[in-house]
Formats: sequence, structure tokens, C-alpha cells
Amino acid sequence: MISKLINGIKEKNAPVVVGLDPQLSFVPEQILNKYYKEMGYTLEAVAEAIYEYNVGIMDACADFIPAVKPQVAMYEQFGVPGVAAYKKTVDYAHKKGLVVIGDIKRGDIGSTSGAYAMGHIGTVQIGDQKIVPFDEDIVTVNPYLGSDGVKPFIDVCNENDRGIFVLVKTSNPSSGEFQDRIISDDSRPLYEIVADKVNEWGLTSMDGDYSNVGAVVGATYPEMGIALRKLMPKAYILVPGYGAQGGSGKDLKGFFNEDGLGAIVNSSRGIIAAYKNEKYASFGAEGYADASRAAVEDMLTDIRENI
Amino acid sequence: MISKLINGIKEKNAPVVVGLDPQLSFVPEQILNKYYKEMGYTLEAVAEAIYEYNVGIMDACADFIPAVKPQVAMYEQFGVPGVAAYKKTVDYAHKKGLVVIGDIKRGDIGSTSGAYAMGHIGTVQIGDQKIVPFDEDIVTVNPYLGSDGVKPFIDVCNENDRGIFVLVKTSNPSSGEFQDRIISDDSRPLYEIVADKVNEWGLTSMDGDYSNVGAVVGATYPEMGIALRKLMPKAYILVPGYGAQGGSGKDLKGFFNEDGLGAIVNSSRGIIAAYKNEKYASFGAEGYADASRAAVEDMLTDIRENI
Repeated sequence: MISKLINGIKEKNAPVVVGLDPQLSFVPEQILNKYYKEMGYTLEAVAEAIYEYNVGIMDACADFIPAVKPQVAMYEQFGVPGVAAYKKTVDYAHKKGLVVIGDIKRGDIGSTSGAYAMGHIGTVQIGDQKIVPFDEDIVTVNPYLGSDGVKPFIDVCNENDRGIFVLVKTSNPSSGEFQDRIISDDSRPLYEIVADKVNEWGLTSMDGDYSNVGAVVGATYPEMGIALRKLMPKAYILVPGYGAQGGSGKDLKGFFNEDGLGAIVNSSRGIIAAYKNEKYASFGAEGYADASRAAVEDMLTDIRENI
Repeated sequence: MISKLINGIKEKNAPVVVGLDPQLSFVPEQILNKYYKEMGYTLEAVAEAIYEYNVGIMDACADFIPAVKPQVAMYEQFGVPGVAAYKKTVDYAHKKGLVVIGDIKRGDIGSTSGAYAMGHIGTVQIGDQKIVPFDEDIVTVNPYLGSDGVKPFIDVCNENDRGIFVLVKTSNPSSGEFQDRIISDDSRPLYEIVADKVNEWGLTSMDGDYSNVGAVVGATYPEMGIALRKLMPKAYILVPGYGAQGGSGKDLKGFFNEDGLGAIVNSSRGIIAAYKNEKYASFGAEGYADASRAAVEDMLTDIRENI
């Protein structure tokens, strides 16, 4: 799978993924009102609205980007209809030729991680039918439970040519509370210990020069990014935190390898809610999708200049 | 919320929760075949089957237990229809007067954790409507991202009188890989550092003698349970790993406080798939729910004798 993502990145010269995180306040009024009128103030109305919103963004941006990253929490908050909108978003992204990184941050004991893996990046066997439940290409995984919580995902990656990004050093302000603690018999922070494991796990799922097992490292911690890049030479790094969370192009160089590959930078709010940003306000709410495209082009310029 | 759970535990003299983790291989053939016949080998058929299976178990056991713990992975593996069956299970459990512990193990950056919290234990505002999306009473939370990934859940607990159990020391074999690493400036394992935080977070959401912020500590690590019990005197401990994972009644005493409270023990497979166990095989697949009730009664005897 990682080679498919890399091909997309090379083809579009765009190590960039757009986070489809449809907070209700981002969705333009005209879309919301259309469905409120039709369906009332319901979860179903919101689910239709966020799907239409996503379709607009994907239609406007698909030529410039290799992948999208829907954050499942933003759909789960709208209950079962929201989860259905997540699934429709995944399917539409595939139609547009985009790699789908499901930002699900799952992780549990072995048999349970296996169920998550089958549901999201694998198949379930029902009678004589093999059914694909959610069909993301890659998902994010939380490592707190250790190897037996991660390996079932890797097994499914190998069976179905899929990928995972394991949380190593997250972009949020308090990520250091546990992740940065120094492990005494190693004199290194926990996130480096996790990175060692990501590297080890990754060797069991190579796909060309890189592994299907990647890592999440926040753009907000560029110096840690440099160290982690070296610890996991075969891991693609998914870099959140660009834009609204504070990371910028000059912070990114250290996340990439010398081959110009090895990282893919996510922006969510900065792209999908661009029309609410003064810089792109002239597009208006009606032009939200065009505002997103303009923001993607600016992000690409910033990143290409800096890596 | 924790006082509501405690009342249920006292009333039924049952510090026990049944894990509703419907792996397909647990669901009796007669239920599966009924829906396969009607709906084919589809996700929808399986979703109906696991819901009926859950209803049977809840009907048989609700008089003896205060709570159920559906593991959402076992529903997500069946896609959107599976998630709908999860929601129906939550609703039915409420009808039976059961506290619902959603085993979702979510955790993300602040705004995203907020979305999970609103979706699972809170409400979303849509126009002039306040809607309850999933409606669990308590959910499990992964702490890897630190305080700003956990606090949005606690805020929602305080707004809606709900609860969380934060993963501290999980029951799986490789949980020690990261959780047991010794933190150098503290000379204690990571799971104790997390426990300190659980204790601190818990003080911001007290409900009687205990906090709405509890902890997950596996029955498979009884000595750590004793130490963790002392570090988090106000936290209820959700104890997985009893039964199929290896924990037994004699391992449990240390998880409880001297008031006889402070812990609730989960069993999933040992109860819901009891009819597949030699001991309860005489019930047969048709009597799966009665087998579950017998297994609950045996579990209660084992636990009451040991705490």
C-alpha cells in the first residue's frame, strides 16, 4: 500500500493529505440549511450535509493531492448516521482515486485489535461471502497496549495490501506528559522506544523502499521529527499539526529523507475551512471548495519551497 | 454517574459487568441462519443476529448484574450495520436498567477527543435540538496523548453526569512493553505515572465517595492491581481479563477497597459464549442465554467468596 501512496505523492508532487474533519461550524450554511429544511434538525440531516461538504472539497482538490484523512471522531459525534457519512466519504474518495487514511487511532488487546483491523482495512467472512466493511487504505493505530495490540493490524495489512500509521509523538500540547518521559534503562524518551518498535514491526511489512507500517509525528515538534526520522528510516511519517495547530513549512524538512520522500503532511482546518480564513474570505461560503483548492495550492508552495 | 453504578452493584451484590463482545463464532447457528435466510450473507443480517443474541443474554442476566460492556470493535467489524447494532444494544441495555460501559478506548488531541466525548457520552447541538448520539453511560479512554486528550471527556462527564475508565495497565500479555517501562526521574513504571494522573483528573469529577474518572487494570496483573488500588483510592477500577484471559477470583481481592467497593470485574467470552464451554454444554445452543445466566451465577459465587 505504501508504494501506492508514494506513487500518488510523486505523480502530483504533493506530500500532502487533506484532513476531512467536518466540524459542524465548518459546514457552509447553505448546505446545512438545505438538509435542515428537508430533514429537520436531525443527525441524518447533518450526515447528508457533511457528506456533500466533503464531496465538494474532494472534487475541488483531488487533482492536487494523493490522499485524504477523514477523522472518524468528527463523524462518530453524529451517531450512526455520522458513521454512515464516514463510510460514504471513504467510498467517494476511492472513486476520485484518492488514498484514504482513516484517522481512527484504534488499539486494543489482540483479538479486539483484530476485529478493528478486519472492519477497517480488511474483510469479514460471512457465510460464503467475503465482505469489506469500511475499506480505508491506511488507518492510524494507538500503541499503548504494545505489540499484541498492533500486530493484528499488520497481519491484515499483509493479507490485504494495506497500511497503518502508529502514534509515536502526537502534535498536541500535552503529548509530552507520557510520551516524553525518559525510560531509565534506555535513557531515552518513551516516544523513541515506541519508534524502535515501529521500525521493528515495519520490517515485517515492507513494500518497496518503505514499510506499510508508518508513524505519526507532529509538525509541532520538529526537532523530535529529525531524531525520529533517523530511528525509523523505512517508516513513512504522517505529520499532523501543520497550519491551524502551529506547524509551518520551515518545520518540515527534518521529517523527510534525502530521497525527498518519507513524510506526508496533513492539514485539516486550514484547508477545509479556508473560506473562513481572512486570506480566502473573498471566495465566500458558496465558494468554500474553491477556497480549499487555493489553500491546498498555497500549502504545496510552502512545502515544496521548504523540503 | 459512578454513584449510579455503585448503587447497582450494591443492590445486586454483584461487582460484575458482562462484556457484550459478539464475535461471529459465538452467535448460535439458529440465530444466524434465521437472518441469513431472510437477508443473505450480509452485514445487515449479522447485525440483526448479534443484536438478537445480545438481547437474549441481557434478558437472562439483567436481574443479576448492574452493567454491560459492549466492545465496539466487535460491532465496527461489521461496518455501518454493525455500529447500528451497537447503538440498539446500548438502548436495549438502558431499557433493562443496566449501566452501559462502552468499551471504545478512544483518545485523540483535544478538539477530537471532545467530538468523541460528545458523540458517546454527551450531546450535540443541531439547530435548536440537543441530540444524544450514542448514549453510553461510561466509556473507556486511552491516555497516550496526555491530559488534553482526556480532559474533554471529563468536561462532558461533568456536564452530563457520565463517567470514563482510563487505560492504566491493560490485561494483554504485551501490555508491559510500554506500560511497565521505568520512568527515570520517578523510578516507577509508566502505568503508575498514568495512575497518578487518573487520581488527579478524578478529583475534578467526584460523585460521592468515588470519582467519575476510573481506571482499567487487568485481572491478569493482580500485584500491580494492589499497588494501583492505593495510588488511586477514589477511582473505580474496571478489571478485564477474568475468565478466558486467565484471571480468577483469588486474583481480585487487591483491586477492591476495604469498603468492599472500588472495582468491577468484567467477563466477556466466559459468559456470552458459556454454552460452548463443556461445563455449560448441556444448555445447548438453543439455551445459550440460560447458559450465560448460569455462568454469571458461578462468576458471582467465585467473586463473592474471594473479596
